[in-house]
Amino acid sequence: MHNVSHLECIKCGRRYAARPDRYTCDACGDAGILDVIYDYDYIARRVSREAFEDNRDYSMWRYMPFLPVEEGSARRPLRVGWSPLYRAEALGRVLQLDNLYVKDDGLNPTGSLKDRASAVAVLKAMEAGADIVACASTGNAASSLAGNAAALGLRSIIFVPKRAPEGKVAQLLIFGATVISVQGSYQDAFRLSAQAIEKWGWYNRNAAINPYLVEGKKTVSLEICEQLGWQIPDWVVFSVGDGCTIAGGWKGFLDLYRTGLTDRLPKMVGVQAEGCCPISRAFHTGRPVEPVEENTLADSIAVGVPRNPDKALLAVRDSGGTMVNVSDEEILAAMGLLGATTGVFGEPAAAAALAGLRKLVADGAIDRHETVVLCVTGNGLKDIANAIRASGELIRVPPDLEYVERALKRLELRG
Amino acid sequence: MHNVSHLECIKCGRRYAARPDRYTCDACGDAGILDVIYDYDYIARRVSREAFEDNRDYSMWRYMPFLPVEEGSARRPLRVGWSPLYRAEALGRVLQLDNLYVKDDGLNPTGSLKDRASAVAVLKAMEAGADIVACASTGNAASSLAGNAAALGLRSIIFVPKRAPEGKVAQLLIFGATVISVQGSYQDAFRLSAQAIEKWGWYNRNAAINPYLVEGKKTVSLEICEQLGWQIPDWVVFSVGDGCTIAGGWKGFLDLYRTGLTDRLPKMVGVQAEGCCPISRAFHTGRPVEPVEENTLADSIAVGVPRNPDKALLAVRDSGGTMVNVSDEEILAAMGLLGATTGVFGEPAAAAALAGLRKLVADGAIDRHETVVLCVTGNGLKDIANAIRASGELIRVPPDLEYVERALKRLELRG
Repeated sequence: MHNVSHLECIKCGRRYAARPDRYTCDACGDAGILDVIYDYDYIARRVSREAFEDNRDYSMWRYMPFLPVEEGSARRPLRVGWSPLYRAEALGRVLQLDNLYVKDDGLNPTGSLKDRASAVAVLKAMEAGADIVACASTGNAASSLAGNAAALGLRSIIFVPKRAPEGKVAQLLIFGATVISVQGSYQDAFRLSAQAIEKWGWYNRNAAINPYLVEGKKTVSLEICEQLGWQIPDWVVFSVGDGCTIAGGWKGFLDLYRTGLTDRLPKMVGVQAEGCCPISRAFHTGRPVEPVEENTLADSIAVGVPRNPDKALLAVRDSGGTMVNVSDEEILAAMGLLGATTGVFGEPAAAAALAGLRKLVADGAIDRHETVVLCVTGNGLKDIANAIRASGELIRVPPDLEYVERALKRLELRG
Repeated sequence: MHNVSHLECIKCGRRYAARPDRYTCDACGDAGILDVIYDYDYIARRVSREAFEDNRDYSMWRYMPFLPVEEGSARRPLRVGWSPLYRAEALGRVLQLDNLYVKDDGLNPTGSLKDRASAVAVLKAMEAGADIVACASTGNAASSLAGNAAALGLRSIIFVPKRAPEGKVAQLLIFGATVISVQGSYQDAFRLSAQAIEKWGWYNRNAAINPYLVEGKKTVSLEICEQLGWQIPDWVVFSVGDGCTIAGGWKGFLDLYRTGLTDRLPKMVGVQAEGCCPISRAFHTGRPVEPVEENTLADSIAVGVPRNPDKALLAVRDSGGTMVNVSDEEILAAMGLLGATTGVFGEPAAAAALAGLRKLVADGAIDRHETVVLCVTGNGLKDIANAIRASGELIRVPPDLEYVERALKRLELRG
């Protein structure tokens, strides 16, 4: 990895060699999240807009010069990344935005942006010589790990809390993961996974513990920029749970800027659910992040004890962005709005990002002429229960055309 | 459409001008399915392997010279097609196939190969001047129509039978479709949709009625060939319900052959469920297709009265291929095998194709040195209920490392 200089603690600045199994700072413990520091001069000599235009690898691995993986280790069995960026004119008209784009990361192999992180994790696991990679999660992190591990022939062990929904567990089992259902809370599952990883030397894919995951996530921003013809949008909107995804998004824009591929930076918007907004609260009050309850239907961002608030807050503050909260009702309304105007079916967390954007435009914080990119971080098919809550009414008729006609008249819809 | 010559009835050979709203043969009625006949000399002068290699449109629309849509009408809001083709080494080892590939069409925008058909349907609807496009379906056809229509700003009206699962209806409603729940059977819903389409002049996206849909589906084969470096596989495996998908697959290979881009044709394998195999039975007995019960969990291919058996039978017979039936147990086993060896989560119908392939290899009908492409036609996230049935057991432990250790010892798995 000639492109990587070292790892650096974001708390105390201590430096570490970029070993694949170096996770956190020895001095600061789990709070000492490490940042991958690159040699941008080295990278700058190896990248150009023209070279990217000639690159036929339409996946996240086209950005190999920016990624902390050994060049020799880059077997990449699943096609992760290069998700579509849609110009969303109809949705823009509703929000009164002239230049709105939607990045549909729900079209990744296992249905979420987390595939970008897991694709890096499984390669780092192989670099570390591990046969087994593990995490504690019930959501997108787990399914992306199980899928990417299966494709590479690695074993995955996933710790889930007792309450993990059967459907989400089924996807893990289909991918051949060993699923350990810890008869307790998510915190119990997380703690037990940490102990087991420590004891048996498995590779650790727990978000925010592993510094390389954010680096995979950042490819979403590299793509946004390239897909916009190397223009930087004014605003980029992510929903925020743990904080890792928005941190990754910001890192991507920083990378482009630092290598001179772009000459400006966007403002980052972080959206949280009203019922679970510890990072947003810290952003607005300036006080430290405090644990909160997890009262929202948007399970991908229902994180009461976020593990990466520092990197997330840095992303929003350094970019001159902002954070906003939305209610569950606003999230459900946004799911239908997104689907009906773009044909993109996003999970509730993705709809939360749209709901937040809508608020900021209505408040005048975002101007209608500014360019905005909305990140859809997960596929709505992953959470049908909430899609049912979000969807409107169907029309019940007997099998007789006359009833159809009456119903359509009420809708003023006959073609 | 200079590339299209005319439409031709596959029963009686009558010819029709290729109007966007010409559906079936006047003389033969609904059984008189029309085939789009191209001017292959015209197309051959406009395509070459080199031109495709320079084409940066990585979607089904890169094959525009082969598609029956007006060049001016080609607004294509969703990124349909160019799904990944994976070399499946681990799965190949299990099946004892040296050259196995998996085409993951579950990564299309609404999660299935049907997006290819619906993307054409909505463009033809616009060509026909329609504002509303309609069909009767509960499955992938409906969701792909609703999603593609939403992205283009068209209204969609979907007729579903009373028994349509709530989750599938929710996806339609999220896409803004008008969903008419006919209080009766699928046949009732289909008949009512036909009457309403006739009466109000909506555009008809009912499969096998509309001759243009198969043309969209054929792009899956154009992609397979290009992704294999313009090699034609020995075998291509599809599951079969209505018959339209395998017919489309075959048409794509014919198109390539007729324009001289390739010099051979593959053998097509059609797989049906034991509990619902009218086309397979007709193939093996030589007798006409007869209606059967729909006794299989693979709902995408549970079609007791297939509407396109003729084109499907032609595809299998003309290609020198074969058909095979698989049990629900074999389908469930194949779901897990596919996921655990490739990281691809396919719906039961896709797993059926794998189960059928497995049988043919075991029977010696397919040789281990032959090149085989398995088509995964839909995303497993669409049918979590069956994924739960297909998946193995999770391991329940109290939050104590000792119990984890005991469980792992039983699995002989500690890293």
